[in-house]
Amino acid sequence: MRYELYYWPTIQGRGEFVRLALEEGAADYVDVARMPERTGGVRALLRLLENTSAERPPFAAPVLKAGKQVIAQTANILLFLGPRLGLAPKAEATRLWVHQLQLTIADLVTEVHDTHHPIAGGLYYHQQKREARRRAADFRTERLPKFLDYFESVLERNRSGGRYMVGSALSYVDLSMFQVIAGLSYAFPRAITRLKRRYSRLMDLHRRVMERPRIAAYLASPRRLPFSTEGVFRHYPELDR
Amino acid sequence: MRYELYYWPTIQGRGEFVRLALEEGAADYVDVARMPERTGGVRALLRLLENTSAERPPFAAPVLKAGKQVIAQTANILLFLGPRLGLAPKAEATRLWVHQLQLTIADLVTEVHDTHHPIAGGLYYHQQKREARRRAADFRTERLPKFLDYFESVLERNRSGGRYMVGSALSYVDLSMFQVIAGLSYAFPRAITRLKRRYSRLMDLHRRVMERPRIAAYLASPRRLPFSTEGVFRHYPELDR
Repeated sequence: MRYELYYWPTIQGRGEFVRLALEEGAADYVDVARMPERTGGVRALLRLLENTSAERPPFAAPVLKAGKQVIAQTANILLFLGPRLGLAPKAEATRLWVHQLQLTIADLVTEVHDTHHPIAGGLYYHQQKREARRRAADFRTERLPKFLDYFESVLERNRSGGRYMVGSALSYVDLSMFQVIAGLSYAFPRAITRLKRRYSRLMDLHRRVMERPRIAAYLASPRRLPFSTEGVFRHYPELDR
Repeated sequence: MRYELYYWPTIQGRGEFVRLALEEGAADYVDVARMPERTGGVRALLRLLENTSAERPPFAAPVLKAGKQVIAQTANILLFLGPRLGLAPKAEATRLWVHQLQLTIADLVTEVHDTHHPIAGGLYYHQQKREARRRAADFRTERLPKFLDYFESVLERNRSGGRYMVGSALSYVDLSMFQVIAGLSYAFPRAITRLKRRYSRLMDLHRRVMERPRIAAYLASPRRLPFSTEGVFRHYPELDR
């Protein structure tokens, strides 16, 4: 099965959570919008998003095509891919627990996005800078520690040793947690430096995922796009004071 | 199986999406925090949320207990309950599609929440009123039509007749869609009155769900809490101009 990922070609964004799973799962996949216009490109992505005859239209990217199936919503794509790529536990109850953590990560990612876009996704950052400062301050002091306390405690309470979020094997939620820590470290370096010691388990998980052979190879390849002030995780020094 | 729902006892909030499924599914359930302190109450909810020995802690309410399983995240709870209550299709691909729609509803609900709390959930509305006006204006003119266009088109494209969001039978996402329309009509009556004609399929779905015998009985019962300015959907006239 050759998977087709449809996502914006110049940013990590929410698509990165899917890319990491495809890479670690050694999936046969194409990142369609990053292909030349002849076989893909951003126009192929727009065609998919604007296709008015699709019976099951996606609301937004990322979208995964698996044969005839067209799946959107990041956490939903991972719910689908997990078992197929060997990145999900077998038991239904444990799969739901992994998915629950993924949905909590999605909530955190939305809050990260809203630190730089608290008023409107359709406006530029500079048009909502004052509000962004206020929201980012609350995020750094209230929300970020609340989320990280939570995820650290999940590792701590994992009775199978706490090397992974769930059980004793890697699942896709570990890859997503890696991406969250990487993104936060890029966007809020001062805040993360201050908090690092409190979250040693999360920092260890981040390093452990980063050193996995397939992830390390991916991160060193041109397939891994850099963080930037176009993505979800953005570094604006004034939001990290 | 007696289900236990743990949610804030005085608001509809996100718990309402679960309550509607339990009611339509004629499930045997208790709304724990609404029971007397002797057998439940808000203290039982807090005990669950603050239980530091739980191996799989929830980040926030709603939480559903099903025997030993403890499940959080609204869409995840519905993913679990759907097949058990006869409110989900059989095929895996179709279940994922229902779940994808539910996750898109969850995104909309977060944006509704942020119209009155664009800066911080921990601050009062009056402490972020100016920002709320700006965010609500963008929500009414940009985001709300985008979401409703999308959901209307899902009904329109449903090749099984479009009486339901997916296929030819009711699923939990129809109940959630009903709740969204009900909540939006309460919070933004002017905006919704203006948009109503454009979304006749969604309005029909809202009415059809409301008239189902079990839902009608629930809505007429004291179990249905009223909308209020404590919940996710809040009516502040200044946000609906």
